[in-house]
Amino acid sequence: MSSFNPVVEKLSPPPVPAVAAWGRAYRGTHGPLIDLSQAVPGYPAHPEMLRLLGETGSSTGFTGYGAIEGELSLRQAYAAHLSQVYAAELRAGNIHITSGCNQAFVCAAMTVAGAGDTVLMTEPFYFNHETTLAMMGVRTAFVPCQAQRGFLPDLAAIDAAITPQVRALALVSPNNPTGAIYPPDLLRAIFDLCRDKGIWLILDETYRDFMPEAGRAPHELFSMAGWEETLISLYSFSKSFCIPGHRLGAITAGAATVEQIAKIMDNLQICAPRAAQAAVAQALPLLADWRETNRQEIGRRAEALKTVMRSVNDWKLDAIGAYFAFVRHPFAGHSSVEVAEKLAKEAGIVCIPGVYFGEKQQDYLRFAFANADAPTIALLQERLKNFSLS
Amino acid sequence: MSSFNPVVEKLSPPPVPAVAAWGRAYRGTHGPLIDLSQAVPGYPAHPEMLRLLGETGSSTGFTGYGAIEGELSLRQAYAAHLSQVYAAELRAGNIHITSGCNQAFVCAAMTVAGAGDTVLMTEPFYFNHETTLAMMGVRTAFVPCQAQRGFLPDLAAIDAAITPQVRALALVSPNNPTGAIYPPDLLRAIFDLCRDKGIWLILDETYRDFMPEAGRAPHELFSMAGWEETLISLYSFSKSFCIPGHRLGAITAGAATVEQIAKIMDNLQICAPRAAQAAVAQALPLLADWRETNRQEIGRRAEALKTVMRSVNDWKLDAIGAYFAFVRHPFAGHSSVEVAEKLAKEAGIVCIPGVYFGEKQQDYLRFAFANADAPTIALLQERLKNFSLS
Ligand SMILES: Cc1ncc(COP(=O)(O)O)c(C=O)c1O
Ligand SMILES: Cc1ncc(COP(=O)(O)O)c(C=O)c1O
Repeated sequence: MSSFNPVVEKLSPPPVPAVAAWGRAYRGTHGPLIDLSQAVPGYPAHPEMLRLLGETGSSTGFTGYGAIEGELSLRQAYAAHLSQVYAAELRAGNIHITSGCNQAFVCAAMTVAGAGDTVLMTEPFYFNHETTLAMMGVRTAFVPCQAQRGFLPDLAAIDAAITPQVRALALVSPNNPTGAIYPPDLLRAIFDLCRDKGIWLILDETYRDFMPEAGRAPHELFSMAGWEETLISLYSFSKSFCIPGHRLGAITAGAATVEQIAKIMDNLQICAPRAAQAAVAQALPLLADWRETNRQEIGRRAEALKTVMRSVNDWKLDAIGAYFAFVRHPFAGHSSVEVAEKLAKEAGIVCIPGVYFGEKQQDYLRFAFANADAPTIALLQERLKNFSLS
Repeated sequence: MSSFNPVVEKLSPPPVPAVAAWGRAYRGTHGPLIDLSQAVPGYPAHPEMLRLLGETGSSTGFTGYGAIEGELSLRQAYAAHLSQVYAAELRAGNIHITSGCNQAFVCAAMTVAGAGDTVLMTEPFYFNHETTLAMMGVRTAFVPCQAQRGFLPDLAAIDAAITPQVRALALVSPNNPTGAIYPPDLLRAIFDLCRDKGIWLILDETYRDFMPEAGRAPHELFSMAGWEETLISLYSFSKSFCIPGHRLGAITAGAATVEQIAKIMDNLQICAPRAAQAAVAQALPLLADWRETNRQEIGRRAEALKTVMRSVNDWKLDAIGAYFAFVRHPFAGHSSVEVAEKLAKEAGIVCIPGVYFGEKQQDYLRFAFANADAPTIALLQERLKNFSLS
């Protein structure tokens, strides 16, 4: 038999389906299943979003091949939106639309690193970033982030990790899995370091729209002179518009970088699906208020989780931010997989084991609390209190 | 400034947009522009296809993340369809849905080859296959296909080219760019050779639905015992359903291969866009007659092109098959880019220069004749007759 590519064969199977299977084995003993596993908002897309998707989907205007970089209407609308969010001057030429933010990361990583190069990541890491680099034959090195520092990386540790083989640093803020929100000053310092060392900063901002403070720019990097030569920023329309099934993301970068990415995207899939692009271009300004309402709702869910966690003694909420909490379970010495599997099957709480985000995260579980409304989150209290491993 | 990945930087820009720009420079002197460049059918999607796309697009049922391997409804419908086309037993577990056939090729290639490995291709080749492998750091070697053999590869030449570094042979039948249709016996012999040598056969069958003979299986490979250990077949819904903008393709392979591909797809983009999958699952059986009508229509376009080419003396129709013709221009010694550019700008005929499909193809132009209806194709006669390079 012909053999498989060993770097692909070695990849572990996708974690989300595996975890979902544990949830299906729950027998309902303690009430309904509480799914805190996948990072999807627990509320539906806006009816106007759906109407627009139906309209563009059934139109002959979007059946043909489209521009590789994306529909001009969406690139323009998104650039205008970003210019507001960051109080910076961004143009359609800075935007490359992709089929979701995982693909945006693939494109960004390929643009700057090839097989044998190294990309630096923080640990705990978003698992698809790690597996993507592994499958590309790109080496990874890790900057550890500790609970006592709010899971923020230490600048000196990043500096020390930048060997001559390192082509880029990949960050996620607000972070998956910890929820940690990188302060603008830290991002500025990291940016300066990357620029001085001549490496790229790939910044995944998938959860940008769920920051606890309204109206404050996540960072000022887009206003720095020459940002285009260091920064590649990634975004997902999946979470903010509740349309992951339509697969839309975006890269913000210098025009020269967008040109490189277009060559990659032409190979990867020619262009992102067009009807959804045209629909989101219209929805982006229309649904601003709705997205703000959701941001506030997710803030209430975070508060509900904080309340719960204060009352369950042995469980520690080591980090909580936009969308995710990183929770220390009380069973030190046991694997996070054992704890998560039992929690799903017996207590009906589905979450992701810490070890999926790094070998050293066995004491942790990731709760994607944005998935569940506040009354559902309140149900965690009894279930966690009564849960035991034996 | 941080630098780009050299294998990406070296890729030439995507050819289709470049060629389209020549077409826009045509001043209309000889009548309307005749676009024979991109491989898209010149007729619209069926109204029922559009209605279904609108229905699924506006449904909340497809807004969430979906199964990585694809919607079960489409995998089942497509497996049933394939079982008929090939008179073989194919199941949903043999199918992985992708965002188009370029992505299907990326997945197939990654599954079997990593940086430093070699993939064998026929030349002339489909350019995205070549650039995809280059961007992955995979080496390529070429089996030349000559006009006098109908652009079919020679079995002994393939055999000789299979060095220990070769992991797979990538073929396209019906071929892009030549249109050549590989006879079942040749495919069988190539399959046997690949199996015996322990390399994979990646067979891109994007143009399968446009073969001149109705109802005949393109090959019998899916009926061979153990086919799963050698064959990976690729398909596109873009051409047959006239919906390239919705980005849908499929891989047919053994279940073990599908499992490897799911790991890659999870990284590349989690899943293909769902609404279009659900719509095509319904359209696949419904639109069988419509697709047969289109097959016949494209046959008439091929006949129209043959008639034209018989009457323009110096131009030679060296190959014509499903969808494409590979045409030898009369300006030997001149580059195919020079000829194609002038043909677009001055005669209003847009086609792809042969050199984009391989360095040795300077004497050729690819006509995607399926793009234009028979009366439009008839207009080529005057324009080609009156065309000169000087
Ligand atoms: C940090 C991060 N990046 C990217 C993605 C992928 O998002 P998309 O649905 O846009 O591919 C996710 C999804 O969970 C994520 O958490
Ligand atoms: C041989 C071949 N494979 C794959 C593709 C890509 O098709 P899709 O639109 O499904 O990505 C094309 C498109 O022209 C093609 O000619």
